[in-house]
Amino acid sequence: MLSGIDHIGIAVEDLEAALGLWQSNYGIAVSHRERVDQQGVEAALLDVGASHIELLAPLGPETPVGRFLASRGPGIHHVAFRVEGIEQVLADLAAKGVELIDRQPRRGIRESRVAFVNPKSSGRVLVELVEPAGNH
Amino acid sequence: MLSGIDHIGIAVEDLEAALGLWQSNYGIAVSHRERVDQQGVEAALLDVGASHIELLAPLGPETPVGRFLASRGPGIHHVAFRVEGIEQVLADLAAKGVELIDRQPRRGIRESRVAFVNPKSSGRVLVELVEPAGNH
Repeated sequence: MLSGIDHIGIAVEDLEAALGLWQSNYGIAVSHRERVDQQGVEAALLDVGASHIELLAPLGPETPVGRFLASRGPGIHHVAFRVEGIEQVLADLAAKGVELIDRQPRRGIRESRVAFVNPKSSGRVLVELVEPAGNH
Repeated sequence: MLSGIDHIGIAVEDLEAALGLWQSNYGIAVSHRERVDQQGVEAALLDVGASHIELLAPLGPETPVGRFLASRGPGIHHVAFRVEGIEQVLADLAAKGVELIDRQPRRGIRESRVAFVNPKSSGRVLVELVEPAGNH
């Protein structure tokens, strides 16, 4: 069902500062940058092997990442697992009683299709499922 | 410097319950289990592609994971990146002024060598560097 860790999502207050930090500490540069209105974030992907770090800066305080920063401060926000056939995966999870935030996939970064699982169903871990677009 | 995401570490209160949850929701079973006294945890690894979920139950309240659970509750505790030549990586980071929790690697799960970077130097993300043993 889960074929790998696609990325870890990190909530940041200042995207430029965060990009500078990961670049200067670890030598990893941004490979993709995009405003994802559906998720209320300006996002940047940094490649780490076959996985990514996804830096997330909120577009405003009343967004999921804005509220996360206000309550918990910057840090790891979610983990995203790669899947194939995301509709079937979501149907299988729902059939088991797993609480889904998104019962249908929505558009994620870089034309991926994504869905979030309610942290209540994953030991307080915010889990994202990602089916990348064909070319990624 | 970083060749991939080795694992995400998840703090849990009840290891058996957490194992059951990841098994029943996502069909992933434990591949390794070990008490790591140096880190004050009972740990379990679950394979996700080439990466792992590492479930961490504290051996007592006065351990790093015990204190994390008391202050923040269960959830994602750290992200671990795979490296080669961990001593040199640590020396390079220290030379750049990155604050290290471990200036020398210590023994991690499954005979790996690991070191933690101070979250102050990584945007409040607890970063672990892992050099797996030759056979993993």
